[in-house]
Amino acid sequence: MSQHKNLTLVGQVMFGRGAIGQLDAVLAPHRMGEAPMVFLVDHVFREDARMLGRIPVRGRDRLVFVDVSHEPTTGDVDGLRDRIRAELGKVSGLVGIGGGSTMDIAKAVALMLTNPGSSVDYQGWDLVQVPGVYKVGVPTLSGTGAEVSRTAVLIGPTKKLGLNSDYTPFDQVVLDPDLVSGVPARQRFLTGMDCYIHNVESLQGRMMNAFARVHAEKSLELCREIFLHREAWDADSDEKLMMASWLGGMSIAYSQVGAAHAMSYGLAYVLGTRHGEGNAVCMRVLGDFYPDGVGDFHRMVERNRIDLPQGVTRALAPEKLDKMVDVSLGMAPLWANVLGEDWQQRMTRERLRALYQRL
Amino acid sequence: MSQHKNLTLVGQVMFGRGAIGQLDAVLAPHRMGEAPMVFLVDHVFREDARMLGRIPVRGRDRLVFVDVSHEPTTGDVDGLRDRIRAELGKVSGLVGIGGGSTMDIAKAVALMLTNPGSSVDYQGWDLVQVPGVYKVGVPTLSGTGAEVSRTAVLIGPTKKLGLNSDYTPFDQVVLDPDLVSGVPARQRFLTGMDCYIHNVESLQGRMMNAFARVHAEKSLELCREIFLHREAWDADSDEKLMMASWLGGMSIAYSQVGAAHAMSYGLAYVLGTRHGEGNAVCMRVLGDFYPDGVGDFHRMVERNRIDLPQGVTRALAPEKLDKMVDVSLGMAPLWANVLGEDWQQRMTRERLRALYQRL
Repeated sequence: MSQHKNLTLVGQVMFGRGAIGQLDAVLAPHRMGEAPMVFLVDHVFREDARMLGRIPVRGRDRLVFVDVSHEPTTGDVDGLRDRIRAELGKVSGLVGIGGGSTMDIAKAVALMLTNPGSSVDYQGWDLVQVPGVYKVGVPTLSGTGAEVSRTAVLIGPTKKLGLNSDYTPFDQVVLDPDLVSGVPARQRFLTGMDCYIHNVESLQGRMMNAFARVHAEKSLELCREIFLHREAWDADSDEKLMMASWLGGMSIAYSQVGAAHAMSYGLAYVLGTRHGEGNAVCMRVLGDFYPDGVGDFHRMVERNRIDLPQGVTRALAPEKLDKMVDVSLGMAPLWANVLGEDWQQRMTRERLRALYQRL
Repeated sequence: MSQHKNLTLVGQVMFGRGAIGQLDAVLAPHRMGEAPMVFLVDHVFREDARMLGRIPVRGRDRLVFVDVSHEPTTGDVDGLRDRIRAELGKVSGLVGIGGGSTMDIAKAVALMLTNPGSSVDYQGWDLVQVPGVYKVGVPTLSGTGAEVSRTAVLIGPTKKLGLNSDYTPFDQVVLDPDLVSGVPARQRFLTGMDCYIHNVESLQGRMMNAFARVHAEKSLELCREIFLHREAWDADSDEKLMMASWLGGMSIAYSQVGAAHAMSYGLAYVLGTRHGEGNAVCMRVLGDFYPDGVGDFHRMVERNRIDLPQGVTRALAPEKLDKMVDVSLGMAPLWANVLGEDWQQRMTRERLRALYQRL
């Protein structure tokens, strides 16, 4: 009999417009004496008085802006952990306010405040030994599923790989559609495509059960509705994208992403391409694997008037292209999900290099 | 600004065919020394060697059959609590294996092993003060949503009302489609209709947000697929009904049931009608409130060749009918969800009595 995964869910979730106004009350029972809460906030909000005014900073609490202009690294996480320890000592908890990168950093730092060593040591599956400090996720971008997932994806010295564990999910998530209403259309689209693409990849993949399927199907339906069939973006679209991200994240536990993510990891590692853009760039050339999904993807790009970069790998040195291929082929479970156990016969270095050259 | 609920989710969930085979491993880290696990099992499985053989009874563990031929009462719960305390002392946890009644009993007994007094004291909202013992739900019937809800519905001396609290959800749920494969077709239908009906009620109601809506929509779609559009019941139908129940339960936190549930509570209180049958019997006469939902309901009854009782209230003494009306009108939030804040003008005693008389 196959081993079924035991999925750890987010502890509590609050959904609603203006829910961030209740964050202070949500945090209150988790404050331990004078030990501060640390708010890790996407640096894009550095000058955003309206957003900053909503963050319930009290007493010795600290607000730390995180630079997520690059994919988060194990060095970022270890550095933040060291800084928090040195400057604040014991903390009551961590609140990540931002997109997928900020939430992943918050999850990872919360774990590294209680687990010894470097976050590099925990890149993998079920390596985390003890629960982290209390951690809260407040997404300001929808699509990554980081608010619900059991991973925190980091770029380390040798690999891009998540801290996957039962201790990784947030204790609390606050889903406030108001917070995603100001996202620039291009970024909203690319982050939404992360969700759309992983639904296509998982529904077309070999690793799937009914739990994952029903969540992914509804998530995909919502993505199609808002990006393909709706005349204009509105507040209801924000809510639907927020829920698409949540459902997509719920589906991932019992399914697996596929070719776009596998290729995107190589792009991220070699070129530092952001996850959302990387997935989208790769999706364009994957019509052989996902004919319907890629067809709709092209229509979504056109309808939403998104310019995707062309010639991404054109000027790339051959050894860099080789490294990209190496990193991508290292994502064995993803390729097996797309092509089956004999994927190595079907996705050769030459074939993958040719796909990368079309980007 | 309205107060948004903070929804407590089930701690962990395992989905998969044969997942009950992993129950022993799931329980292991929660065993505290010699303190036993108590398995509360629907008495329908008393002679079922195959089912009983799957329950990982170890050491001082106790298997207790619960009689759920009637709706569970506060007396049942207090009695079980007293018996477990007297016979076993401290326990490691409770595992409820059965339908909605068995799961509700397990949730309530787990709470009453740590909260003082009678379960009667906790019928209501957020009255439970401290977490219960570790509790696990293993559904053998799909549709009630009890595996995921934050309530444990009990009939008390004066009311049918749940123990609604953040401490009520299970710490662990095991969703094994094999366990629901042997349910007799009529019972499967009636329990499935509990799910179908609460989706119709919540989607047509006034209390609803995007979180609830996406879950209820997918749950309703699955119910329609398996009860209305599929030629024959198969293993895939079991999985879909199991997921419909889960999603329906997830939707309830941010929505509310309606007229069928409100009337069914009166039937249950006065006649002891089981929840699934009560909802179905009432749904028949609610075409004015849910025209599409009731239309499909009639088609489902016909297609699945279900005989529903006729003349349920025909021989009922007038004072009993009055009591039924009283109990139902007591469900104010449900009627407000159907008819709005001025529901009392629109659902008079006379109108409700006339509806009951048509059953």
